[in-house]
Amino acid sequence: MNTIETFERLFPLNRSITGNGLRQSLSIIGEHIPLNMIEYPTGMSCFDWEIPKEWNVKEAWLEDMEGNRIIDFADCNLHLLGYSIPFQGVIRREELLPHLYTLKDMPGAIPYVTSFYEERWGFCVPYNIFESLDRSHYRVHIDTELKPGSLTIGEGYLRGRSKQEVLLHTYIGHPSMANDQLSGPLTLMMACKWLLDHQDSLNFSYRILFCPETIGTIAYLSQNIEHLKSHLIAGYVVAFTGDRGQLTFKMSKDKNSLANRAALNILKTGHREHQIMPYTPYGADERQFNSPGINLETAAIMRSGPGRYKEYHTSLDNRDILSEESIKDSAGFLIEIIKNIEANTAISPIHTMCEPKLDKRGLYTTLGKNGEDKSLGRQILAIWGLSDNHDDLIAIADTLQVPAYSLNQALHKATEAGIIRTERESEHDTKSKEQNPV
Amino acid sequence: MNTIETFERLFPLNRSITGNGLRQSLSIIGEHIPLNMIEYPTGMSCFDWEIPKEWNVKEAWLEDMEGNRIIDFADCNLHLLGYSIPFQGVIRREELLPHLYTLKDMPGAIPYVTSFYEERWGFCVPYNIFESLDRSHYRVHIDTELKPGSLTIGEGYLRGRSKQEVLLHTYIGHPSMANDQLSGPLTLMMACKWLLDHQDSLNFSYRILFCPETIGTIAYLSQNIEHLKSHLIAGYVVAFTGDRGQLTFKMSKDKNSLANRAALNILKTGHREHQIMPYTPYGADERQFNSPGINLETAAIMRSGPGRYKEYHTSLDNRDILSEESIKDSAGFLIEIIKNIEANTAISPIHTMCEPKLDKRGLYTTLGKNGEDKSLGRQILAIWGLSDNHDDLIAIADTLQVPAYSLNQALHKATEAGIIRTERESEHDTKSKEQNPV
Amino acid sequence: MNTIETFERLFPLNRSITGNGLRQSLSIIGEHIPLNMIEYPTGMSCFDWEIPKEWNVKEAWLEDMEGNRIIDFADCNLHLLGYSIPFQGVIRREELLPHLYTLKDMPGAIPYVTSFYEERWGFCVPYNIFESLDRSHYRVHIDTELKPGSLTIGEGYLRGRSKQEVLLHTYIGHPSMANDQLSGPLTLMMACKWLLDHQDSLNFSYRILFCPETIGTIAYLSQNIEHLKSHLIAGYVVAFTGDRGQLTFKMSKDKNSLANRAALNILKTGHREHQIMPYTPYGADERQFNSPGINLETAAIMRSGPGRYKEYHTSLDNRDILSEESIKDSAGFLIEIIKNIEANTAISPIHTMCEPKLDKRGLYTTLGKNGEDKSLGRQILAIWGLSDNHDDLIAIADTLQVPAYSLNQALHKATEAGIIRTERESEHDTKSKEQNPV
Repeated sequence: MNTIETFERLFPLNRSITGNGLRQSLSIIGEHIPLNMIEYPTGMSCFDWEIPKEWNVKEAWLEDMEGNRIIDFADCNLHLLGYSIPFQGVIRREELLPHLYTLKDMPGAIPYVTSFYEERWGFCVPYNIFESLDRSHYRVHIDTELKPGSLTIGEGYLRGRSKQEVLLHTYIGHPSMANDQLSGPLTLMMACKWLLDHQDSLNFSYRILFCPETIGTIAYLSQNIEHLKSHLIAGYVVAFTGDRGQLTFKMSKDKNSLANRAALNILKTGHREHQIMPYTPYGADERQFNSPGINLETAAIMRSGPGRYKEYHTSLDNRDILSEESIKDSAGFLIEIIKNIEANTAISPIHTMCEPKLDKRGLYTTLGKNGEDKSLGRQILAIWGLSDNHDDLIAIADTLQVPAYSLNQALHKATEAGIIRTERESEHDTKSKEQNPV
Repeated sequence: MNTIETFERLFPLNRSITGNGLRQSLSIIGEHIPLNMIEYPTGMSCFDWEIPKEWNVKEAWLEDMEGNRIIDFADCNLHLLGYSIPFQGVIRREELLPHLYTLKDMPGAIPYVTSFYEERWGFCVPYNIFESLDRSHYRVHIDTELKPGSLTIGEGYLRGRSKQEVLLHTYIGHPSMANDQLSGPLTLMMACKWLLDHQDSLNFSYRILFCPETIGTIAYLSQNIEHLKSHLIAGYVVAFTGDRGQLTFKMSKDKNSLANRAALNILKTGHREHQIMPYTPYGADERQFNSPGINLETAAIMRSGPGRYKEYHTSLDNRDILSEESIKDSAGFLIEIIKNIEANTAISPIHTMCEPKLDKRGLYTTLGKNGEDKSLGRQILAIWGLSDNHDDLIAIADTLQVPAYSLNQALHKATEAGIIRTERESEHDTKSKEQNPV
Repeated sequence: MNTIETFERLFPLNRSITGNGLRQSLSIIGEHIPLNMIEYPTGMSCFDWEIPKEWNVKEAWLEDMEGNRIIDFADCNLHLLGYSIPFQGVIRREELLPHLYTLKDMPGAIPYVTSFYEERWGFCVPYNIFESLDRSHYRVHIDTELKPGSLTIGEGYLRGRSKQEVLLHTYIGHPSMANDQLSGPLTLMMACKWLLDHQDSLNFSYRILFCPETIGTIAYLSQNIEHLKSHLIAGYVVAFTGDRGQLTFKMSKDKNSLANRAALNILKTGHREHQIMPYTPYGADERQFNSPGINLETAAIMRSGPGRYKEYHTSLDNRDILSEESIKDSAGFLIEIIKNIEANTAISPIHTMCEPKLDKRGLYTTLGKNGEDKSLGRQILAIWGLSDNHDDLIAIADTLQVPAYSLNQALHKATEAGIIRTERESEHDTKSKEQNPV
């Protein structure tokens, strides 16, 4: 997958929380990841919410009475108020102005404005243009369609040895913006590439979701909550991962969740500059996953984060502020987290009473000499030595100040030698969980 | 109330742990706060202690044989040893000197010295004067009265909706010193002014105490411990709040007490320079409130603190070292703590399963636009979103990094909309607590 | 004891994990500490290990065919591979080289190399000499003896009032190295000197061990584990305490062990520069004490630590890198830890309900005056004031930010006055523990 090429194909599409632009985007993503398209019909109840009408745009423009086109949806889909109802006619300037959305302090930028749940029509206009509107009358042409249809979600599933799942989620459904739309999907696609390359050896299964923000995620949860509650062991929302800000890890609600522990071990033993945020119900769709009654422990990976960079929700959130390096770094972090979850297992000692004599088992050199490579043997002894008061490999790795997955070989050798016992969650899919297949 | 004017009236009075100067001081304070004067009679048992005789001073001076007055109680009440017994007569220099208390390293200062529990007579003298005493004989005139009487306490009570109480305490009973006497009462009077201004809307009741240090507080506790144990939810000792040192919050003994949590939330989300001290049994009357068997969780608010500024317990602890700004800042901190306690309530979710759709309830804008004020709606969602794993509003506010009381409006709206349930301690005065009225 | 003199006597001896050099070393140490020599016979099973044959060296050298002696065990015992089997004969250069151990990046140093558990012969050679070996044939003469014998351990025991024990451990059994051999024994001997000087007043008993590393310690544990499990309250491994690095305290496995708490209190209230390491199963014999199934909470005291100074396991680890100051400082730290353990006791209040009136009991001045020494009285009140929510003296001392043992006098006075109750572990040797005498 070429990230920039995919970016260029996805950027111009007119995505919203429903509609054909959303479907086309998921279709392009689906060229790289096996995605199932789910359609939830208008009017379907989702907890406290309801799927709205489907919205599609044919054309939309504003002209003066001489036919000079002032703004045109064809130039930039941000020009049209999201979910704008249709409207056509000539109106007086005074009538027009309340339908124009603008940002005085960023006079060259088109703001991103939506009205999903109240019927409005309108345009989004750079303040420079807004200010120059001095005619008495204007011609408005908004040819949109709002009618019963459906909301589309892209869902992938990679089956590992265990039916227990890790959730990887991003949102899809914003129009032509870079960080606040395409960074998340591009990052998630990179991580999925790694998963596909390692599919044969995965311990856990992976649920991959591309959902319209808020309503799409709520809709999916409303239909799958029982399954997720019985299968999910950790979740990550990946969004806002493309700006040049520092990597940010926002914890899930329960401080001690696997989602948090697997990630913090990577951050604390690695060299990535980063900040760690406690869970707050501000942010993106992690709000839904961690909400009362849902409580699917889901952390978030981002850089600056929603609302914390100046181009947020404007036409300036474009290719210029996107850093391929940030996307790669974010994906690399997510991949390391996945490796940690894959590596993790409960551990307890079989051998007890002083160290096992590893050289008898061919696991330690008999030559006591500086420079002799004892690292594997030492790791075996270290895992064993902590196996009676540390719950799992991540906890042991935290104490040893190394990434959990870096202990994979030693863990394997120690298990094989009968020194420790592991009890990977993937090794016993409980019967009760089988009762709720997807 | 004019703080400086009140200071000037209170400063010259000869306060001690008993006597008329103490009563006059309480009477002046009582002009601003409705205070009940309690008199505990000499000889009354208070746990391990006993109310001493009442002490009053008519006059006291030291002269040489030519009648030159060397020191005079009329000039400064610190000149007389606190609780000095009467003595009159001409004595030799050698006999006199052991009765003179002085500070060699602060030669211009009169030390503050007392002998409450052993009969002594004596004067407190600047070292400069002490050194110049070269005559063979001196005339001592100490006309004091030590006889059965009573110890006086000032007690105020502001009734809120709940009979549960917050204790606000300071000591009274030191003679003419500024920081180590008047700073506490002046600060407490400011906070009481705020309480009186808001008396109609208080959730909790407030017990306000002006007690002679140690013995007065112990006496009060001995008579009211049952009531306090069943009514007190938090307490604050306010003293040493007038010097130019940094605001200091000394925690109550149980780290997780409401007294601590309400205050730490203010400090950690605000801009006051401050330091936080763990509880130790050194300090002022918080020692009694937190003592074994009593365990009324009571924190302390101060600046430098007892013994930690050089003018401590001398005549140099006067108007010059008092900062009106420090008193205002200390009172402001206490008022914010009170607002936090007033705001606090246990919270649990009523709505569950993803976010409630707030725009349906008129609590969220339907226009998705930068700059649109969503703060109230966001706060409602935040309180709700943490309501299933945070115990109360202060815990939620700690996570959101805002003062708890700043969430008042959102809390009210969320409760009104039926999204969350609050259980303010003030809402159910238990029957069992009614059994021990004052 | 003169540390340097003892060092000079011990340094040249050819110690190994068995043999006469080990016995001679223990004998010299035994001139200062009453030591019992324990001999464990070759072939004895020790958990997963077995006592190896005993090794003794008569002579060992390498010559060219003209009789020029190139290296000689008599010059430095590091020249001979530890546990080298005997070998005599003339061999070709190509045959010789694989038997020579050298360090290219430290060309003047003899490396310390051993082969305890696989039969090898060999020499350890500075790279400078190794490089100059250009003859075709050499004469090898290694006259060693490997035959059934025993492994020797030095064990001391100082009986205090209680049979409960504190373990003080170091290893013995490395040849002529300074920091990585003699620093530990010299430090431990200094601490034992203090114990001997205070033997009449010790609350606890002290088990002092000088064991060959790994196998010696495992052997001792295998024979004494039942006794140690029922008697040991804390343990310390003392090794690598002689280089000029910073004092390092490595915690025992259970963060809240007495071994950790007694030491951390000293570090946090004192002025020693230090670092604190969490427990990891890397290091010296603390690995065995803290191993699964053993779990005798044992911390370690060192400076730079094994492998963390450049002269480690070479002939450059000699007198030059040893600092008498470091040894004294390490021993001083250990002695303070011992004083803390001796001082520690569970505490609960007898007096309750506000402070006891100490002046009635002669424990507080009746003169309220700056400069009056109130420190003892204040300490008594402080211990009492925390006695109902702090478990023991160390916890109280942590809160008061003083060494626990500095509260000894106040503790004694408070107990004597009947204000608090102590329950020293040494005061009740339980019957069940009597069942497992040594």
